Amino acid sequence: MIKVNGLASNVLPVTDRGLAYGDGVWETIVIREHQLKQLDKHLARLQKGLTALAIKNLDLSLVRDECHKLESKNENAIVKLIITRGDAQRGYAYDDTNPCRWILSTHELPVFPGSYEEEGVSLFQCDTRLAINPRLAGFKHLNRLEQVLARAEFTAEYQEGLVCDYDDHVIEGTMSNVFVITEDNRIVTPDLSSSGIAGVARSCIIEHCHDLGQPVEVKPLVLHDMNNAKGLFLSNSVIKIWPVKQYQNKHFAIPAIIRTLQGQVNKSL
Amino acid sequence: MIKVNGLASNVLPVTDRGLAYGDGVWETIVIREHQLKQLDKHLARLQKGLTALAIKNLDLSLVRDECHKLESKNENAIVKLIITRGDAQRGYAYDDTNPCRWILSTHELPVFPGSYEEEGVSLFQCDTRLAINPRLAGFKHLNRLEQVLARAEFTAEYQEGLVCDYDDHVIEGTMSNVFVITEDNRIVTPDLSSSGIAGVARSCIIEHCHDLGQPVEVKPLVLHDMNNAKGLFLSNSVIKIWPVKQYQNKHFAIPAIIRTLQGQVNKSL
Repeated sequence: MIKVNGLASNVLPVTDRGLAYGDGVWETIVIREHQLKQLDKHLARLQKGLTALAIKNLDLSLVRDECHKLESKNENAIVKLIITRGDAQRGYAYDDTNPCRWILSTHELPVFPGSYEEEGVSLFQCDTRLAINPRLAGFKHLNRLEQVLARAEFTAEYQEGLVCDYDDHVIEGTMSNVFVITEDNRIVTPDLSSSGIAGVARSCIIEHCHDLGQPVEVKPLVLHDMNNAKGLFLSNSVIKIWPVKQYQNKHFAIPAIIRTLQGQVNKSL
Repeated sequence: MIKVNGLASNVLPVTDRGLAYGDGVWETIVIREHQLKQLDKHLARLQKGLTALAIKNLDLSLVRDECHKLESKNENAIVKLIITRGDAQRGYAYDDTNPCRWILSTHELPVFPGSYEEEGVSLFQCDTRLAINPRLAGFKHLNRLEQVLARAEFTAEYQEGLVCDYDDHVIEGTMSNVFVITEDNRIVTPDLSSSGIAGVARSCIIEHCHDLGQPVEVKPLVLHDMNNAKGLFLSNSVIKIWPVKQYQNKHFAIPAIIRTLQGQVNKSL
């Protein structure tokens, strides 16, 4: 199923600014057992991005309704939502009154080997760096060449790749957020105020840990913190929580807190 | 006129990776008096971008032929050429064997007031910063949100906006490159190895100055260099060379070398 501005269509005009400049935002929302998971959080991040880019004329309640319509039709699916600033001729300047465009599509929910969740995954260290840009950090805009370049570095031997910024800070996986369990059992995740995408799953984990009385520390991390970790895990809305079993020739155990989070947070994802 | 992969069409599939991730490159080529200007340089930069992104299966000679076909039909026009990595379902990973997509469109060549070229333009100082990312610097990829944000900062009172990177280096205008004439008549333009787009007009100016025996110095510049300049000018393929008459409340004269370059380089643009 693909709809453009609410109408069935699988094409869009070549004049769309999403194509020309990556001028827009997107979300990947999961439907499990006919239920959209964490729709409010996804739409809140979408709105954060629209605000950052000053894309003003989206009827978010209409988009929300269209998303909900997909629940009855899809037992399990991925819903991809793209909002662009709409059409333009040439030039970076835009007309504020121009209607934006929204594209909604459903995709098959991938099924991963159970071992990823149970035994953990292998994490590659990418050479590609993320640029530091506070104005574009945190939300999910359409300028994603860094992720494309990083993802191209590793093969199926690895399930994910870790990416640092140009200041040698660990930021995230190419498609996931990363958490560190320290030797003294603290949970730490990189600060994303200058680079990276703040995932909805990450936000659920942070909230859940807060409720558990074991708050996640959000702060700058470096590779040393990864290598010295007691355990590592990755999160996103589709994969939920994957422990890391191997990274940089080091084998990691799976600390109890990762199992606790899998048991408790996975339900909401 | 719009063609997608050589066929008349004004739409493309919503699954195009140019839309999803800005996964592609583009060029803006001018036709004047039925002649494509600097096509070789434009296609060389395009190829540099394709190589940087590892987009491998474009038949560049075919695209070149299609561009040439536009010369007889258009006395004056802008040709916009977009190359994307083609279609994908979800996910950053790509299949190398997948065909890329190319989109060719013609647009009216804008006519600017003669005063811009003769008396100069007003240059705004943008707050938006460019991220530092050597891997994506120099070529014209489709991740252009920084330019969109910078361009949105100024109104028609200004003809262009100057943008710095996060290290306080002057990089370029939102749609042009910038040159400084120093008090002792040297010509300097920012180094673009970490940020910015190396324009075809910039390259023509650098070559011409070399031939004149007055080579352009390509090096890091800061705002102080702008304020202390004897003169400033902007270049791109469409505007050619615009002197700056006003920047940061300072009024600039137009040094003779700018007139010389306008007289000599403009013909090739």
